[in-house]
Amino acid sequence: MSTLNGKRVLMFVDHVYEDLELWYPKLRLTEEGAEVVVAGPEEGVVYTGKHGYPCRSDAAINEMESGDFEALVIPGGFAPDKLRRDPRVLQLTREIHEAGKPLAHICHAGWITISAGVMDGFRCTSTPGIKDDLKNAGAEWVDQEVVVDRNQISSRNPNDLPAFCREIIKAMIR
Amino acid sequence: MSTLNGKRVLMFVDHVYEDLELWYPKLRLTEEGAEVVVAGPEEGVVYTGKHGYPCRSDAAINEMESGDFEALVIPGGFAPDKLRRDPRVLQLTREIHEAGKPLAHICHAGWITISAGVMDGFRCTSTPGIKDDLKNAGAEWVDQEVVVDRNQISSRNPNDLPAFCREIIKAMIR
Amino acid sequence: MSTLNGKRVLMFVDHVYEDLELWYPKLRLTEEGAEVVVAGPEEGVVYTGKHGYPCRSDAAINEMESGDFEALVIPGGFAPDKLRRDPRVLQLTREIHEAGKPLAHICHAGWITISAGVMDGFRCTSTPGIKDDLKNAGAEWVDQEVVVDRNQISSRNPNDLPAFCREIIKAMIR
Amino acid sequence: MSTLNGKRVLMFVDHVYEDLELWYPKLRLTEEGAEVVVAGPEEGVVYTGKHGYPCRSDAAINEMESGDFEALVIPGGFAPDKLRRDPRVLQLTREIHEAGKPLAHICHAGWITISAGVMDGFRCTSTPGIKDDLKNAGAEWVDQEVVVDRNQISSRNPNDLPAFCREIIKAMIR
Amino acid sequence: MSTLNGKRVLMFVDHVYEDLELWYPKLRLTEEGAEVVVAGPEEGVVYTGKHGYPCRSDAAINEMESGDFEALVIPGGFAPDKLRRDPRVLQLTREIHEAGKPLAHICHAGWITISAGVMDGFRCTSTPGIKDDLKNAGAEWVDQEVVVDRNQISSRNPNDLPAFCREIIKAMIR
Amino acid sequence: MSTLNGKRVLMFVDHVYEDLELWYPKLRLTEEGAEVVVAGPEEGVVYTGKHGYPCRSDAAINEMESGDFEALVIPGGFAPDKLRRDPRVLQLTREIHEAGKPLAHICHAGWITISAGVMDGFRCTSTPGIKDDLKNAGAEWVDQEVVVDRNQISSRNPNDLPAFCREIIKAMIR
Repeated sequence: MSTLNGKRVLMFVDHVYEDLELWYPKLRLTEEGAEVVVAGPEEGVVYTGKHGYPCRSDAAINEMESGDFEALVIPGGFAPDKLRRDPRVLQLTREIHEAGKPLAHICHAGWITISAGVMDGFRCTSTPGIKDDLKNAGAEWVDQEVVVDRNQISSRNPNDLPAFCREIIKAMIR
Repeated sequence: MSTLNGKRVLMFVDHVYEDLELWYPKLRLTEEGAEVVVAGPEEGVVYTGKHGYPCRSDAAINEMESGDFEALVIPGGFAPDKLRRDPRVLQLTREIHEAGKPLAHICHAGWITISAGVMDGFRCTSTPGIKDDLKNAGAEWVDQEVVVDRNQISSRNPNDLPAFCREIIKAMIR
Repeated sequence: MSTLNGKRVLMFVDHVYEDLELWYPKLRLTEEGAEVVVAGPEEGVVYTGKHGYPCRSDAAINEMESGDFEALVIPGGFAPDKLRRDPRVLQLTREIHEAGKPLAHICHAGWITISAGVMDGFRCTSTPGIKDDLKNAGAEWVDQEVVVDRNQISSRNPNDLPAFCREIIKAMIR
Repeated sequence: MSTLNGKRVLMFVDHVYEDLELWYPKLRLTEEGAEVVVAGPEEGVVYTGKHGYPCRSDAAINEMESGDFEALVIPGGFAPDKLRRDPRVLQLTREIHEAGKPLAHICHAGWITISAGVMDGFRCTSTPGIKDDLKNAGAEWVDQEVVVDRNQISSRNPNDLPAFCREIIKAMIR
Repeated sequence: MSTLNGKRVLMFVDHVYEDLELWYPKLRLTEEGAEVVVAGPEEGVVYTGKHGYPCRSDAAINEMESGDFEALVIPGGFAPDKLRRDPRVLQLTREIHEAGKPLAHICHAGWITISAGVMDGFRCTSTPGIKDDLKNAGAEWVDQEVVVDRNQISSRNPNDLPAFCREIIKAMIR
Repeated sequence: MSTLNGKRVLMFVDHVYEDLELWYPKLRLTEEGAEVVVAGPEEGVVYTGKHGYPCRSDAAINEMESGDFEALVIPGGFAPDKLRRDPRVLQLTREIHEAGKPLAHICHAGWITISAGVMDGFRCTSTPGIKDDLKNAGAEWVDQEVVVDRNQISSRNPNDLPAFCREIIKAMIR
């Protein structure tokens, strides 16, 4: 189980991130051999999840280069509401997407992909809360455990995490 | 200062509403003589604001009739993320709008007006967090204390509340 | 609605202030055109309300001069229990009172006016919790939405805020 | 150390009681052999201290008879602000006092003895926060670890608890 | 990745469980095809993690039969301090162990295996906090990411979860 | 009641200490004339009890000398889980014990005395949660309000505090 050895994955964090949507992929991809970098507005700051789990950021978002990563995984919660206001978050998301690398978003993380302008013509899922925002951004929205459309992988909530990570790993092995 | 005597205003509440964006208009319109009804998912339930202020709902949303109200004021916070999933919330919003009655939304309340499908072709403002969602819904977004376009009144955050309420009152007197 | 243009109002803040009793008058008087200065034990410090709403102080109490203000509005909560121990708070209150300027207190704010020695012979109201303390200080206590006696305006609790502010504005226009 | 065997002591509790000012006397008098009954607005309800310590009430205040107790000890915190509004609290306090039994109050507990009308002509101490209220009620206020005047024992804050309890025990042995 | 299809795993939950030490194995084994049953003192009750994550129990501990499960995984936190007092928890642990089925414990979960009397002669790891208790129970304690000794698998803390689950899965496939 | 005049007592504190198990002995021994020093990992730091009561440490553990104290009293809660990892805590405990001075532990404090290696052959009590750990450390465990065996005094929980302190004082007078 070290199918992702040598591969680097970027994740975003900010206050009020959904605790398991960050930690499950982080630990799961680590288990599979990947190196996961959790980047927040600042490096070395402890961000607190929606339910209270602390996460110290490994790096600052504005020092990240998309070329250093094989994939981007964005957790939900209300953190995306803040993160989507940061042009650097949107640029990193766009670059990963345009390079055709796996771009995974779950729950409310679609707020970031909407603002990055990468949803037009893509099939996806999310929390029902942002369904209309995804449709208005040009996406085809379906209510499904996990949706894979080209390089994009999306899920609805923490219960979908096993399916979500299964597809992220598959996409990264390809 | 009882310019709104005999007029009834509807407001929506749910957990994690923005405390002042609910309470300032509620008390302000009451001061002006209006009767304000705060409706939540259930009647008589205490909903807790984003910062902790409690608000007991006067009524249940699904028992409201738009014909009974002269205006609708929607507070922000993260409550709109839940409320926009309720078809009755969207229907009430749409009916108030289509009747040309004042429809006021502040901060994240635009999530509800987006899902109600009433933003197309309207000029508005909001928290910058949902700017892209409003644009994708067909609105023209500007960064301004308060925006009035026909029957719609919108503001950005609690600091704008004085301007927001001034325009709501003006619109209701007309 | 800019009847108070050019007028300055002083308010006091400390931890455990009653959230709406501070914010409603602050925003309401701002809406009416006044400049409101919220002074706390220190300048630029975030004080947390009884229910959790944050308020950053505009200024430090010990740098305030009563001559710079047209009125003083004191919110309740448990903040007055601390503030009444500060001689500068009491002096400012006394000076505003002796100058015959509007002095408004709501809920537990009477603790400050008691210690300032300005209640003797005045008709007022408050939370029932401090009724006996006001009587012992020489006041005539009544159970009423709002009481106006000469320059003093008093109310009982957050539900009374519309009446409270209506009278403050009237008194400031006079 | 069972000098108080067979003696019963009444204490009052309500939400936001000062944790140690209730628990230290309760355990201390128990250690000395007394039976301590903590009475709250309701029997068997858990009241939460100012700092979070839970206290389940042994009995309901309105079922207490002053004749069943040798002494009354009233803790501080903000609980007295609520308790002083209950006529039964005031009556029990007055009866204990008029029977010449030890009446001990600490910190903000003086709010109750003020409203019970038992402070006139008594020397006492308290938190400085209610000094003026005690003076206006006819008491002579001093800043001292513990004050004993006839049957009344008073202290200022949790640091004074050893001296406070020492005097309560002395008074009960007499 | 459905190597554990048809296999059932038992986990224990109680208040103050370590959030990730429960959720990561639960989701990870689900991803691998297993059916995970989280049993608490009562069925259908929401238990709150050390950091605040909620977990609704699938079943009540006293209705579980060890014969229905292929493995037992015990999370840490302070929940084991309570759970080790329940004879049914200890019996289930002992039966799983005596049947030679995988028994996995992490962090403070060793408190339960100590009280179940299954540590004598076993090599293991844990949080350093209970190192001495494990040694006194007859275990050989080492400071290592994950330790496998016959059917027992142990780890130290949440950072070790990838290694911990990798070994649980290996042991369950065998 | 100043039977312990001139005697010094050491107590340990860390986060999540049991509030009353620290404060009752601290105040009680102070009442009796002793000087109590509460030492934590750092000097002058505020540690928060399991229920929220704050305690500022008087001194740092690593600057304490056992020769300066007549007795050691260790509160429970989850603080002992952290404190037992500090070799200086264990050394101080051992030295007090070997000098035959009163060593009092309550609730979960036995975790420290276990790791200090001072329980072998001693009769004691504790919270039932650590009964097995004490037995495995060579102690004889009984379920009793307070147990005195030579210089050791132990109790089970906050309800036992009156009996616990009565025995500590007796032991210190001897």
